[in-house]
Amino acid sequence: MKPFQLASRDACQTDTIITIATPVRQVFIGEGYCTLIAGPCAVENRHDYLNLAHHLKELGADILRGGLFKPRTSPYSFQGLGRSGVDILNQARLETGLPVITEIMDVRDLDFLYPHTDILQVGSRNMQNYTLLEELGRLDKPVMLKRGLSATIEEWLLAAEYLLKGGNKQIILCERGIRTFETYTRNTVDIGAVPVVKQLSHLPVIVDPSHATGKWKMVTPIACAAIAAGADGVMVEVHQDPDRALSDGKQSLTPDNFARMAGKLIQHTLINHKQGASQLLL
Amino acid sequence: MKPFQLASRDACQTDTIITIATPVRQVFIGEGYCTLIAGPCAVENRHDYLNLAHHLKELGADILRGGLFKPRTSPYSFQGLGRSGVDILNQARLETGLPVITEIMDVRDLDFLYPHTDILQVGSRNMQNYTLLEELGRLDKPVMLKRGLSATIEEWLLAAEYLLKGGNKQIILCERGIRTFETYTRNTVDIGAVPVVKQLSHLPVIVDPSHATGKWKMVTPIACAAIAAGADGVMVEVHQDPDRALSDGKQSLTPDNFARMAGKLIQHTLINHKQGASQLLL
Amino acid sequence: MKPFQLASRDACQTDTIITIATPVRQVFIGEGYCTLIAGPCAVENRHDYLNLAHHLKELGADILRGGLFKPRTSPYSFQGLGRSGVDILNQARLETGLPVITEIMDVRDLDFLYPHTDILQVGSRNMQNYTLLEELGRLDKPVMLKRGLSATIEEWLLAAEYLLKGGNKQIILCERGIRTFETYTRNTVDIGAVPVVKQLSHLPVIVDPSHATGKWKMVTPIACAAIAAGADGVMVEVHQDPDRALSDGKQSLTPDNFARMAGKLIQHTLINHKQGASQLLL
Amino acid sequence: MKPFQLASRDACQTDTIITIATPVRQVFIGEGYCTLIAGPCAVENRHDYLNLAHHLKELGADILRGGLFKPRTSPYSFQGLGRSGVDILNQARLETGLPVITEIMDVRDLDFLYPHTDILQVGSRNMQNYTLLEELGRLDKPVMLKRGLSATIEEWLLAAEYLLKGGNKQIILCERGIRTFETYTRNTVDIGAVPVVKQLSHLPVIVDPSHATGKWKMVTPIACAAIAAGADGVMVEVHQDPDRALSDGKQSLTPDNFARMAGKLIQHTLINHKQGASQLLL
Repeated sequence: MKPFQLASRDACQTDTIITIATPVRQVFIGEGYCTLIAGPCAVENRHDYLNLAHHLKELGADILRGGLFKPRTSPYSFQGLGRSGVDILNQARLETGLPVITEIMDVRDLDFLYPHTDILQVGSRNMQNYTLLEELGRLDKPVMLKRGLSATIEEWLLAAEYLLKGGNKQIILCERGIRTFETYTRNTVDIGAVPVVKQLSHLPVIVDPSHATGKWKMVTPIACAAIAAGADGVMVEVHQDPDRALSDGKQSLTPDNFARMAGKLIQHTLINHKQGASQLLL
Repeated sequence: MKPFQLASRDACQTDTIITIATPVRQVFIGEGYCTLIAGPCAVENRHDYLNLAHHLKELGADILRGGLFKPRTSPYSFQGLGRSGVDILNQARLETGLPVITEIMDVRDLDFLYPHTDILQVGSRNMQNYTLLEELGRLDKPVMLKRGLSATIEEWLLAAEYLLKGGNKQIILCERGIRTFETYTRNTVDIGAVPVVKQLSHLPVIVDPSHATGKWKMVTPIACAAIAAGADGVMVEVHQDPDRALSDGKQSLTPDNFARMAGKLIQHTLINHKQGASQLLL
Repeated sequence: MKPFQLASRDACQTDTIITIATPVRQVFIGEGYCTLIAGPCAVENRHDYLNLAHHLKELGADILRGGLFKPRTSPYSFQGLGRSGVDILNQARLETGLPVITEIMDVRDLDFLYPHTDILQVGSRNMQNYTLLEELGRLDKPVMLKRGLSATIEEWLLAAEYLLKGGNKQIILCERGIRTFETYTRNTVDIGAVPVVKQLSHLPVIVDPSHATGKWKMVTPIACAAIAAGADGVMVEVHQDPDRALSDGKQSLTPDNFARMAGKLIQHTLINHKQGASQLLL
Repeated sequence: MKPFQLASRDACQTDTIITIATPVRQVFIGEGYCTLIAGPCAVENRHDYLNLAHHLKELGADILRGGLFKPRTSPYSFQGLGRSGVDILNQARLETGLPVITEIMDVRDLDFLYPHTDILQVGSRNMQNYTLLEELGRLDKPVMLKRGLSATIEEWLLAAEYLLKGGNKQIILCERGIRTFETYTRNTVDIGAVPVVKQLSHLPVIVDPSHATGKWKMVTPIACAAIAAGADGVMVEVHQDPDRALSDGKQSLTPDNFARMAGKLIQHTLINHKQGASQLLL
């Protein structure tokens, strides 16, 4: 018996494909698709977020990201707008018709966030916050589970197992870099985790090249590598003015760079999936 | 400016010494003392826990440990007795007069655990669970902050800063091994963290050689090393019948081995603290 | 001043492209090409090596690999044929017209190996064997420098600097996985090293997905990722009967799988290099 | 069967104790002793080295260290005096009567260094330089094998096996810190390796707290920890004027600090070895 069961290929013969429906579109995450999740690290203010959201929609983003609660290493860093920002996120979602994803850190925020988000994200620091996982496991909404900074692939899949065990089958895995001795990059993206997860599990896996590298110049090459390795999508940080971002500016793409990256990703996707299933083409 | 402030030596000229008073004794944690925290990984049943608690008291333990909520990598492993076990912990505390420490994983358990424990422990998986840290920072009770599996010393002190910023000054740091490439031991105890923390911070630091090594034969040598390096105490797992433990049996000392270890630790302590301040001598 | 100078982009405005000429063809390594190096981990016997060499030539390999001196963790493992195998390697080279690469471990083998090889490889264990690097730096023959198991990118480029400082400008870097806590794969391929090296240095960089992953099923996805990230080629282990290989069988492709991989790699290359410079097309 | 055989406890029931005889004294390395190896990182000039050597002898050092060939990450750093310095080392050895240890990087230096040194050191970068190990395995002189920066304990013992397989039984292991994600210290001393090696092998093991930490203030606490954990000695860098050292000044003790450390080490040794076997007392 493998340590994980419900997350294993044995538990589900076909690849899990997650469908997120908004009033105006359907977004798919899973085998054959190349889902693009984009947005700023944190929602900073209404004007900039809405502008960027509309821009990203035009450029082909499938899902909007935007952090309200930012887990920061120092208590003196910007912690996000918190609950007061949810209205901005919601407006972007209604205006663009794109689904939104945001991070949840505290189980006590669940009832509040639930109606306003399409995917709830568990950050890498909380990958083994089991009380949070247990609550999200009872949800009827997709959860994206980021890999912990030093979690093995097995531990990551076992954290997914906590979610699946509660009954929630809509789980998306996200490789976001692991901690190693190398200091030139913020983290080391474990590209090998992509084919390993695809082999061991039926769950979709995407890659976050922004957090993994910490440098915007590396985001496009790593995003391309992720898709070439078989990832089902990428999540990237985009900011209209990265130099002025309140957090993670150094790893944020401009919208122009996002568009160039998207163009490349579709080409790499087509090599693996000739049937053209990618929603990039839709 | 250093990233951490309240945790820094600059913020507090003298070493923080934490006093835990029970009706029958005072226990100190900090410079000059060698505090021994001992007990099983998890409270398993009333009879065994009470027996062991009395035994450990006779053998010189200063504080009793006993997990009620066990964060386990797999959802299929024993998760601890949960709330139903708190009464056992409390009985041991009242009967022996020793303070108790137990781990808190969920902020919603705080009101429940508060009256029955003397120190609340934040486990390594939750070192950056900031919502938990913020709640514990408002407490008037000591908190032991275990180092995260791949947390740098700076990140660990910044997590302590979250606690201190809330007003709680009774913070104990616990080095419990970091994750490296070495697989022979469960983790790699970063013995260098002890003098580094003593140099950078006024907070007491103890070492958990049980989790750090995962092998009971290594517990005594590493405990001795910790004290020789300047640690203010150790936390070790002791079980009356390690082979039958529901969790962590391989790294648990028998009471006899605990007693032998305690005898050595006092000698190593006296080399650094000639004044004989160690409560081992009391 | 950067710690490395001759390896830096500042020292050489244009990308270094290495040309290896045999009597019947030219092979290029560097920007715009996708060079395929293939062969068994070790030369095991004449019959099998020659068979495979011809087969690989037909399937599009550009360079043949074959170890004579195998650095093995245990002194009781197969250590390679040693000097007695050089004649086999040479025969394959003459018959196929393909250049060959083999590892040198001992400076005292240099005069012997020199006439029979086209590229000398420095293995990861010897990346900081400075006496070896100094000798190879005086050579008029390309050297492939594998990244050490726990070498930072800076240390790797500084090792290249030892070679360049001696006057040898024909240096190829090879990322082959770094050591991390993850145990599912043999090593963790640091895909981010590819764009970093391309940004910091003018030297070509290739990736060895066989050693990096240790599992043949992962070789093709990681090779594709490498090319998508901008690598100038890959080095893979191929064996006609992986189950019977004397070393590294688990990570060896069959010739058929090699051919399938090559087909994918050319497509990924063309996305980055529309001009079709890849010698795969020649 | 364990992967290492001759290095294993099974191969040798009693602890290996190495005896180094000079015309005026005997020095022991192994169980029950606490051998102090001290000296500057590199031999810089005759006057300073001789002065320091006499001083260290008075302060209780058992063996003198002094690098002639310095493996440096950058080719532009001071590389040691090379062969021209051997005469200085030899003079110190004759004048003080203390044995000397120096590093060998190149097999071609062996005949030259052999008559002038008592222990040959294999540095961490060369732990898997098997051609060097094979030559040293044929020697009738002690070899100190430093652990590689990212070598597992098993790989380290297998490297010792290469030496033992050649017939050389006088092997000393030296833990000198491993590479981890922690950046505050130069490396992370794996204190757990000490009891593990003592359990698995009959070979003596010492610790180098200078390289392991990179900071002189940490040298004494880590040296004490090493002895408390059961190490058979320490090797430390001492310089008369650390601020002016050509290499590794930041991690060098002054002679005064060395003396204070030595005083503490003997006390920690006596806790484990009541019989007073330590040569510190002689």
